[in-house]
Order: sequence, then structure tokens, then C-alpha cells
Amino acid sequence: MHDAPPDPTEFDLIRRIRQRAAGRDDVVLGIGDDAAILDAAPGRQLVVAMDTLNAGIHFPLDTAPADIGWKALAVNLSDLAAMGAEPAWCTLSLSLPERDGPWLDGFLDGFLALAAAHGVALVGGDTTRGPLSVCVTAHGWVTPAAALRRSAACVGDDVWISGSLGDAAAGLRFALAPGEPAEDDERTRAAVRGLRDRLDRPTPRVALGRALAGRVHAAIDVSDGLLADLDHVCEASGVGMRVWAGALPCSPALSETVEADLRRALQLGGGDDYELCFTAPTALRDALGELSLALAVPLSRIGTVGVGERVRVIDAGLDQDGPEWVPPRRGYVHFDPDPDPTPDPARERD
Amino acid sequence: MHDAPPDPTEFDLIRRIRQRAAGRDDVVLGIGDDAAILDAAPGRQLVVAMDTLNAGIHFPLDTAPADIGWKALAVNLSDLAAMGAEPAWCTLSLSLPERDGPWLDGFLDGFLALAAAHGVALVGGDTTRGPLSVCVTAHGWVTPAAALRRSAACVGDDVWISGSLGDAAAGLRFALAPGEPAEDDERTRAAVRGLRDRLDRPTPRVALGRALAGRVHAAIDVSDGLLADLDHVCEASGVGMRVWAGALPCSPALSETVEADLRRALQLGGGDDYELCFTAPTALRDALGELSLALAVPLSRIGTVGVGERVRVIDAGLDQDGPEWVPPRRGYVHFDPDPDPTPDPARERD
Repeated sequence: MHDAPPDPTEFDLIRRIRQRAAGRDDVVLGIGDDAAILDAAPGRQLVVAMDTLNAGIHFPLDTAPADIGWKALAVNLSDLAAMGAEPAWCTLSLSLPERDGPWLDGFLDGFLALAAAHGVALVGGDTTRGPLSVCVTAHGWVTPAAALRRSAACVGDDVWISGSLGDAAAGLRFALAPGEPAEDDERTRAAVRGLRDRLDRPTPRVALGRALAGRVHAAIDVSDGLLADLDHVCEASGVGMRVWAGALPCSPALSETVEADLRRALQLGGGDDYELCFTAPTALRDALGELSLALAVPLSRIGTVGVGERVRVIDAGLDQDGPEWVPPRRGYVHFDPDPDPTPDPARERD
Repeated sequence: MHDAPPDPTEFDLIRRIRQRAAGRDDVVLGIGDDAAILDAAPGRQLVVAMDTLNAGIHFPLDTAPADIGWKALAVNLSDLAAMGAEPAWCTLSLSLPERDGPWLDGFLDGFLALAAAHGVALVGGDTTRGPLSVCVTAHGWVTPAAALRRSAACVGDDVWISGSLGDAAAGLRFALAPGEPAEDDERTRAAVRGLRDRLDRPTPRVALGRALAGRVHAAIDVSDGLLADLDHVCEASGVGMRVWAGALPCSPALSETVEADLRRALQLGGGDDYELCFTAPTALRDALGELSLALAVPLSRIGTVGVGERVRVIDAGLDQDGPEWVPPRRGYVHFDPDPDPTPDPARERD
């Protein structure tokens, strides 16, 4: 019999983080002082994004610590990607209900794996007591005038999306309704696991964003839901859009597990996709096809930018005519008491 | 009779923040896109601090929204001050239990008043649903090699502290025990209000930090409590310290409301002071006296740096002999179940 090890102190937790965090040449002083000191990249502009994940709001309460760590950094790198920035450093503020060394180690497994994949150094932050919450600030660099802004969409542009849509929202739906989908064969179970993985481990489109910087017009990452995020672009750019519902990219896992109407709702409004949505001149179609092959990232043309101020959805395939509708201005609004069509894990908790 | 206005959406709250946030010439793109774009200061190093305040942990639950806003930025500017940095921008992540426009306006009153006082631009962040929590990242600039590090204390240095110690901890104590202090005359009530103000509206020593940069050796801001923070400096610098308890600066409000033993405990271990503690060669005594007058910031010499690894407290006045004791390594540890001597507002809540 051994005595149980004493609970770690706050300083023990910080030491644990510090020991595992990797450096970078431009980190003059990392974790362990009142603030970090960093060398600026000459001739470039600093890009700063900050996003928080709260337990039960932004991830289901049963999410593994490593997945929480991954996602907390991923959503911030996705924001940098949507600006076309090259990520460099991040800071992490972690509120934990209790000092839990194994939980922290798991969290760092996910967080630092993604950081290492993108050469990002964790340089500071704090740990504190409180309801489980993870706040990350991500810093990157962009060539002046090359950043991708929401306000840069032009009439006549194509609207493009990376990857596929709706998977994360379906993964959340199944996480909250364990009986679904009804069919319980191995193929379906694998599809559901895949969807959950899109929810828990989103892929920030960093290389794509950097390749698009200075070449395409507006960009945004799809976090609130495609329509809500396209609305943000329309509002910032003073334009309207038409989007062909039949052109929305769909993963095999989603088409196998969700029937057509719900699938479309999840693709248009589910959110948490962290795909890049951008507008580009039609003259770039071939070049974007080549870029898609080069980066092995699917790129789908889904719409067109026109005059107006709203997004119109056409119930037809790409470039086809069909009935149009204008969805209400909404999406995944965190404070909304009924964020249809995606169930909100927070309500499980309230 | 009027209909009640509809609750604001998350986007309404962001719009509200955006409308009130002031700009700066080096802010290329502020609130409203996926990330902020900022011009780097040529030839300087970037300094980044990040700190979170959680309701009931870092401020009493009855704290006014404007005071929460002030303090959330103040603790981060204090970290920049402890590095000797000139603050430039901040980002804010605000988790709110409900969409509350008037609460947000109050919060911004305090936050933006302090930001304006230091020329700091709020450039991004997010608002989300969750238990009340405020995370801020502050960015500043420092001349290369001029930053004040915890690791730079030298044997023979004096130890200095700005302002006075223990007020905030006394303010917290009285906030949690409304019957205290017993004497209920107007003079005592005014003193208690003053102590509470030190808790709610700490003064980040930004001008002092900038004036000390490149001139003194180590620096730290006193947030965990003087002894805990001095321990951090000793550990980082590989030195020991002797501190004269009789030399610790004390406000009139503290001496009027708290008896000597408790007063000393609050000064040594209470925390939340946000004063700058720094070490400097003895040759700088006169210059520091002049700086104190020029900035109208009291500076007290309280100790000396020697060989060793711990802080020893001498029960005597400055430079006097007296009984010595080595306090245990602790201070305000957020995860500690019994953070003596300061009562922890979190325990009111658990």
C-alpha cells in the first residue's frame, strides 16, 4: 500500500504544462513569467484570434480531455486560417473545477499534438479554479494586404467551401440521442464514430488559408453554420448570395446516417464545421481545382455573389434553376434558447 | 405600456461592444472578422499576458459589472507592467449566463475606461454562454533586452515594492463578513469602502513598469501574495531574500481597520495587490526616490537579495536586526482548499 500522491497545486499544473510545451526560435520568453516575450516577424502584420469553449455549451460533457484540448486550439487556428495567416504562438487559460493531473495530461495530449502539427508554440496563459472552460488566444502572421476579410466579397464571385458540411452537427445530434440512428450494424456505427470525430477533432484548414491569402476575395470559417456565416460575409461586404443546396458537399458518413431533409438542415445551419468558405473571381476556377488536388483538400463551388443583402438558397444542383427561399437570419447563436436545427448540449445541463 | 424589447442575440452583444471600442492607428482590422490584424512596432518585442477572472473565485458575487470589467483588464495590464511593457491592444472573451444588455454596458463602462486611460484598443475576442467568466489577453511592446524578468534578481539587490500591501485582501475579508469591522462610525465605513475599492479597482502600475524597464533587475506583480510572488522570483533567479516585516507599506485605511497580526498576514500573503515588486542595485536608491516623486507612486525598500533559495521574514523595521522566520511556500493558490489567511470567496459558493 502506498499513500495517494498529494493533489497538485496550481503551480504544479503550470510546471506540468511548461515541461511539455515546445519552443520556437521567435519565443524569447515562454511560460513562467508574468507575460511572454516574442520576436515580431519583420514586414508582416500580426493576426490575433480568441475563442472560448465552455463545457456543455461547446462540447458535450462526455468529451474526452484530449479532444477538448484539440478542439480548443483547432477553433482558433481555424480563425487564423480564415484570415490567411500563418500560425505562430498561442496562450491558454484553463479553468478547472479541481486539480486533476491526469485530466490535464490528457488535455495536453490533444492540445499539443495539434500545436506541434502546425508549429505553434504555447507561450503563456493561466490555470485557475472554476467551471470547466478553455480560452485560447492564437497569434499568427500575414503579409500586409494579403489577409482574407469578410468584407471583400465582390459581385460576380463564386462561393466556395472546403471539405464537407454537416458532419459535426450530426455527430452532436447522435451524441445527445444515443438511440439514433436506429440501424445498429457495424457500418452505421463506424459512420457515427466518424461524425463524432468531426465534432471532437475539427481540422483547421491552415494550409488552405495560407494558399488562398492574397489570391481570393472574402473568407470566413464555418463555425456558426453555413448560412449564418455567409450572412456575416454578405453584411460585411454589402452583397447578396445565391447558394445551390444540391451543391453542398456531403460526406459518405452523413449521407448514410441522416435522411435528406435533416441532412440539408445540418449542412446549412448546423455549424461547428470549421471549413473555409470563401469567394473568388470565376477566373480562378481552374487554379482552385489545381490547389484542391495539391493540398488534398476538397473544394466545392456552391454559389455565386450578386447584388442584394441576403443569402438565397436554391433547391437545385449547381448552376441549375429551382425554387428559391430566403432563410431567416440565424445559425448557431450561443445565447439562443432554441438553436434549431442542432440540439444544444447546454440544454442538457440547464 | 410597451412591449419589453427582445433579448439581444450574441451578434447584438458583439455589435454593442464593437460600437463602443476605441481604435488605434496600428489596428488594421478590429472587432468583427475572424481575427484582428495589427501592425507590429518596428524593432520592438511583443509581450503577451493572459488572465481569467471567474465569478466567486476572483471577485465576490456581488461585484458591480463595471468593477468586474475594470479588474479583468487591470490584472492583465499589471502583468504587462511587471515586464516593463507599453500596452497596446487587448482581446476579451466573455462568458455570460444570459444575454443581458445592461450588464454588458456596465461591464464595458469599467473595462473601456481603464483601456482608454492606457491607450489600449479592444480588438477582438468572443462572447458566449456559460458561467460568468472573463478572459483577457493583453498585448504590449518592449525594447529588446529591456523587459523585466523574474529571473534577473542579483545578490546584493534591494527589494522594492510600489504603493501599499494588504488592502485588497482586507477588502475581500470585510466583503465576506459584513459585520466586520465592529466599529461602525463614518470614518471606519469610509476606510472599508476604500479597501473594497482596492479589491475591485486595482491600479496597474503601467507607467512605473515602463520607467523601470531596462534599469532595474527582476520584477513581478503581486497577485498571489507578496511572499508567494517573492518565492517565484527567488526560484527563477536562484537567490534568497530577507524582507523586513516592519518596512511593508501600509495604507491608513488598513491600519485603522485591521489589528497588527492580521494586518501583517494580509500584507505578506493576502494577494490581489497588483503592486510592482522589483529588485535593483543599491546604487539606484536615489534615482528610485526621484522616480517615486516624479510618478507620484510610493516606492518602499523592503528587503535585500542574498544567496539561498527562500524568503526569510525579519520581525523588525528596515535594516534592523530581529527574529527571523521562513514562511511555508504558499500564497494565494487558486486550487487550495484553504488559502489562509485570506478567505476565498469561492468557498462561499461551493
